[in-house]
Amino acid sequence: MNLDFQKADGLVTAVIQDHASGRVLMVGYMNEEAFRKTVESGYATFYSRSRSKLWLKGESSGHRLVVKEISADCDLDAVLLKVEALGPGVCHEGYQSCFFRKLESGAWQVSERQTYDPNAVYGGKE
Amino acid sequence: MNLDFQKADGLVTAVIQDHASGRVLMVGYMNEEAFRKTVESGYATFYSRSRSKLWLKGESSGHRLVVKEISADCDLDAVLLKVEALGPGVCHEGYQSCFFRKLESGAWQVSERQTYDPNAVYGGKE
Repeated sequence: MNLDFQKADGLVTAVIQDHASGRVLMVGYMNEEAFRKTVESGYATFYSRSRSKLWLKGESSGHRLVVKEISADCDLDAVLLKVEALGPGVCHEGYQSCFFRKLESGAWQVSERQTYDPNAVYGGKE
Repeated sequence: MNLDFQKADGLVTAVIQDHASGRVLMVGYMNEEAFRKTVESGYATFYSRSRSKLWLKGESSGHRLVVKEISADCDLDAVLLKVEALGPGVCHEGYQSCFFRKLESGAWQVSERQTYDPNAVYGGKE
């Protein structure tokens, strides 16, 4: 039983959840090679749709995602990774989670504080 | 600040998480109309990629998803919905969550029991 990489142009959706707190940290996409590298290395590796290449999360920031558990959904086109997130935050904008904006009265409002300074970590590049 | 529906053929990814337990229940996709209906109605509504139409989750099963909170990710192409899931399970295969298979020693293994009989609920149709 293999993942279905055909439904969405060679990609499956990957939901990243903190294994301890249960917080959803980010959503990424994996092609077959990214998924294989994730399983083999134990670190979440994505396929960047905008840059069209593999992307080891934490490659430049050191904020790697250590995989604790992998699940697949019923139609095998999405995976859920429970991870230990190394470092103060997963989001390249300086937040613990990429989901730092809540919908409030019809507008997206930043609902929490940054956990680190992204300029210090990324030095202007993502 | 609007969601970015352009990056993936008019769709954003929607992660559905149980608001009480924190369990990730399913992943769906929303076009702009599905997202608007979700916000207006308070029930999660998706766009079915395979059937090319809107899909009110629970339309046939009664297992609706009552939206408690909506967040958006940093690049505004994914949303996280914390929900109260009505009924015994979200997955049309009879499980509480669509993520009922875990990767164990390189193979996907069903890791939990069904919470309802999908044939009794769906009567052969999904």
